[in-house]
Amino acid sequence: MLPLPRFEELRAAARRIEGRVHRTPLMQCRTLDALAGASLVFKCENLQRAGAFKIRGATNAVLQLSDEAAAAGVATHSSGNHGAALALAARERGIPATVVMPENAPRIKRAAVAGYGATIRECAPTLAARQEGLAAVIEETGATFIPPYDHPHIIAGQGTAALELLEDAGALDAVVAPVGGGGLLSGTALAVRGRARSTAVFGAEPARADDAQRSLAIGHIVPPENPDTIADGLRTALGEHTFPLIEEHVDSILLAEEEAIVRAMRLLWERAKLVVEPSGAVPLAVVLSHPARFAGQRVGLILSGGNVDLDALPW
Amino acid sequence: MLPLPRFEELRAAARRIEGRVHRTPLMQCRTLDALAGASLVFKCENLQRAGAFKIRGATNAVLQLSDEAAAAGVATHSSGNHGAALALAARERGIPATVVMPENAPRIKRAAVAGYGATIRECAPTLAARQEGLAAVIEETGATFIPPYDHPHIIAGQGTAALELLEDAGALDAVVAPVGGGGLLSGTALAVRGRARSTAVFGAEPARADDAQRSLAIGHIVPPENPDTIADGLRTALGEHTFPLIEEHVDSILLAEEEAIVRAMRLLWERAKLVVEPSGAVPLAVVLSHPARFAGQRVGLILSGGNVDLDALPW
Repeated sequence: MLPLPRFEELRAAARRIEGRVHRTPLMQCRTLDALAGASLVFKCENLQRAGAFKIRGATNAVLQLSDEAAAAGVATHSSGNHGAALALAARERGIPATVVMPENAPRIKRAAVAGYGATIRECAPTLAARQEGLAAVIEETGATFIPPYDHPHIIAGQGTAALELLEDAGALDAVVAPVGGGGLLSGTALAVRGRARSTAVFGAEPARADDAQRSLAIGHIVPPENPDTIADGLRTALGEHTFPLIEEHVDSILLAEEEAIVRAMRLLWERAKLVVEPSGAVPLAVVLSHPARFAGQRVGLILSGGNVDLDALPW
Repeated sequence: MLPLPRFEELRAAARRIEGRVHRTPLMQCRTLDALAGASLVFKCENLQRAGAFKIRGATNAVLQLSDEAAAAGVATHSSGNHGAALALAARERGIPATVVMPENAPRIKRAAVAGYGATIRECAPTLAARQEGLAAVIEETGATFIPPYDHPHIIAGQGTAALELLEDAGALDAVVAPVGGGGLLSGTALAVRGRARSTAVFGAEPARADDAQRSLAIGHIVPPENPDTIADGLRTALGEHTFPLIEEHVDSILLAEEEAIVRAMRLLWERAKLVVEPSGAVPLAVVLSHPARFAGQRVGLILSGGNVDLDALPW
């Protein structure tokens, strides 16, 4: 295990990736405020390059490779957004990337990875098959593995979204970020603790993939059990770097039912006119599902991504 | 016929409605730039209050009513966005509004009008039925008719979107706005002529509702013939105020086929993550359908609205 990142690493990441990723806008919507009984500030990472916050961590990691390591390329396994982000970050540094993807990955996410020029290596949709495929790629090419979330450089990069949110939004009572593997949530928590100690930090998790909530409750990482949720980015377990950061810095993990996730996604499309993927709608689903907790507060929500297959909408 | 608005009226409208409507953001998207072979700057009126630019003109008109006239309320006929905008503008001034709507108006647009507290009066989906319904409302209530586009206050209000675009975007080679009744396009043309004389102004019109293009060609207003286009906001004829302004100030009207409109709409959703209604996607459809005309240019496009029935998408 590598040393956990500290707030200083987030600030360094912010300087490193500046100009290479978008400083995404904040948006507000009166209708959604009225529904929530709170003032909601959306950090629009769905408008980020490659359609999700993942480019922040991938860029931060790729830029820290030595020239020698970079020349051999990078590799990862990903069902989607991290793969596309790494492909783009690698292209911008001019180095090869290979992404091991499950055969059943969404069409749009495969197209994005291919569109950014990475090599796709297909595998069966199991964690074991992903790891085998990745090991083979690294054996063959000498590429550096850039993991989707469980690495200090990734965590520090993802945390820059919350840094910008805190800088641009002014005082917030709470920040809510989705939690899958925990890269975004742990980075968000580090950012909030470093900049706005009195702001609460919540993880937003699908009730059908509530492993982060259970992991915190029991004090060690437990894997998701049949994570049958539409929020396909949030089906993974916490990692050995993300877990302790979340345990130390996150106030709690709040859950949302599937119905609430689809409703939140639809509200964002219909009322805020923003295309947000199911995983990115989980923070709003959580806020709308826990009205008493957020009543009257000013709440920052990270809309983590917008990569949706428009031919397979959940309504 | 009332005197045509001049640039000074646009500037007055901008001052009058400031703080009451959003100064909507500009967005850019590298993927769409690459597709177009041009640098595209989108003015996001889909993120405007009530989901479309129409609140600009409606607010500008409602604020100019005398207290006496205002007390009797306002009325209009509209299949959608203007009705919702007038309902909201009236509610903000604290006066009643009645909207005559065809029975077949999209569900989401009816819900918006009702949601802003206006009275809906149904009519058959013909121009004659709309006008009869409206006359009856005015007879009964003494309300002031606020037309959807053919009025100097409406035109001046709609032109404020282009004023903001020109102020925020810097130099543009061309501005492209959709054209239905011509309120937005004539206001846009006035704004561009007043601020950036060398910038070209294009109207973007569905090929299946090409009455503006034909009207300019023949020199007088001709009505649309069976305007069977998905761009439901652009099925109306030009008006007696909008036509001469467009004739004088617009460089030309460019057409887009239905297929190109649906593709442009989908590209905006999928790549720019913006929910844009079919009418609002027509400018991008036109730019992508006329690549030689816009090659290498910096082009401002007005994404006019984002009110879409998510249960009836065209793909």
